[in-house]
Amino acid sequence: MLKFTKMEGIGNDYIYIDGIHQDVPMNPHFITKISDRHFGIGSDGVIVIQESEICDFKMRMFNLDGSEGKMCGNGIRCFAKFVYDHQLTKKTYLEIETLGGIKKVWLIIDNNKVQYVRVNMGQPILKSKEIPCLFDKEEMINEPIEVDGQVYYLTSLSMGNPHTVIYMNHLDFNIQELGIKFEKHILFPESVNTEFVEVVNRQYLKMRVWERGSGETMACGTGACAVMYASYINGLCDNHVQVELLGGILDISYENGEIWMSGPATTVFEGIIQEEVFNV
Amino acid sequence: MLKFTKMEGIGNDYIYIDGIHQDVPMNPHFITKISDRHFGIGSDGVIVIQESEICDFKMRMFNLDGSEGKMCGNGIRCFAKFVYDHQLTKKTYLEIETLGGIKKVWLIIDNNKVQYVRVNMGQPILKSKEIPCLFDKEEMINEPIEVDGQVYYLTSLSMGNPHTVIYMNHLDFNIQELGIKFEKHILFPESVNTEFVEVVNRQYLKMRVWERGSGETMACGTGACAVMYASYINGLCDNHVQVELLGGILDISYENGEIWMSGPATTVFEGIIQEEVFNV
Repeated sequence: MLKFTKMEGIGNDYIYIDGIHQDVPMNPHFITKISDRHFGIGSDGVIVIQESEICDFKMRMFNLDGSEGKMCGNGIRCFAKFVYDHQLTKKTYLEIETLGGIKKVWLIIDNNKVQYVRVNMGQPILKSKEIPCLFDKEEMINEPIEVDGQVYYLTSLSMGNPHTVIYMNHLDFNIQELGIKFEKHILFPESVNTEFVEVVNRQYLKMRVWERGSGETMACGTGACAVMYASYINGLCDNHVQVELLGGILDISYENGEIWMSGPATTVFEGIIQEEVFNV
Repeated sequence: MLKFTKMEGIGNDYIYIDGIHQDVPMNPHFITKISDRHFGIGSDGVIVIQESEICDFKMRMFNLDGSEGKMCGNGIRCFAKFVYDHQLTKKTYLEIETLGGIKKVWLIIDNNKVQYVRVNMGQPILKSKEIPCLFDKEEMINEPIEVDGQVYYLTSLSMGNPHTVIYMNHLDFNIQELGIKFEKHILFPESVNTEFVEVVNRQYLKMRVWERGSGETMACGTGACAVMYASYINGLCDNHVQVELLGGILDISYENGEIWMSGPATTVFEGIIQEEVFNV
């Protein structure tokens, strides 16, 4: 018997499992099986809560294919809600160990439950080499790049993972056709997450995201941060904006050289996995 | 607080809710919300267990859009497992009231739980008018029909819902391109579910299905029955076959003018819906 909680942050949904009080079989077979949307519980992946020797908790994050991921901006908000709502801690400021480094999060409590979480997402990186982006200039800020015979103005940066940001007049376009061209572009040796942005005003941006390996998704936390910072350095927005994604809205700001993301975290249901199905 | 059970029959997955001991809000808003695969529990729809005045139980079945469906071959097997495993009955033969008529089911028990369910799926209907199929002959059995400039040999029938069956040399083809042509064909005023079949031998058929309104699905119980009967009357199989779908295998036979379907029913997990999310 294995207890779990299904949670989502603006539509980015994971299965959260307490790995402190339960043995969790973190093998690709188990992860893939429970993440399956028809035969399993269904999710974008699995996040396991563990003890940490250097932080309050350790977040282990697994993708659909069972591979381990580094960090997930929407996932860490739900992680923080999980540990507080399940009374694993009473603290409202947490340091969480991830494969993408130590993350600092603040919990906003209402009615004795976490409703909203603020996360320090660290410093954006513009250096082409570190993104990585095979560009002959040190940075790629609003640079005309030919993609499949057409010129697009790209701003590229890393939020721990590579992003490229493109401004559009509107977001009603065929992202399947366009997204794949950037994902496979020779400029990005580790591929890239592509954000298409419509600037509504200096405090409000709309975006759609094409994630490497996944295609269009409803939400990408690091992508929203990349969009905010790219728009800021291009002079298109203030240092505090709301970013609207298909799955919901994130509040992003740039303060003292670092990006801060705030957003909702929602518990959808609690469940118990049947042993007969998963041979736990 | 609302208890539910997620179950699947060869990949056709529904949320099952005991409506005898709980008040279930069967409105489209609730159904759509909990069926959503990112923001809700995620499923092909919702099935509610109710008391019946004329049978052992009544099955109410709701599609993703909240509309009420008539019958679901994979769903009724899980329904039968639900009422037995949750000790709502001790009977292993049940009569279940559905909008598609009264269905008779037999439960195969192992280790005190239902593992397999046999369902009487009733009589197949060949009459063109009753399918409905706007064809000038009384029946459409292996008839050459022009579809988008190419000729296909179609066998059409109703299992309570309309089906057309086409034989292929292999099933490795672009179903997205082909399926839609039949779904929108002028011959079928209520549209049609299209089954593409590879005859492996007289006891084994492989199929892919394009369901009207849904596109390709992993499993369609009535579709597998339609495939068995179409193949039988075309002299391609015996009266008892195994039908392999993307989601698994069903055992189908034709006896005394009626179709019988046997297949697995699996409980994936039990859960409790959060009030804050669904305002139950």
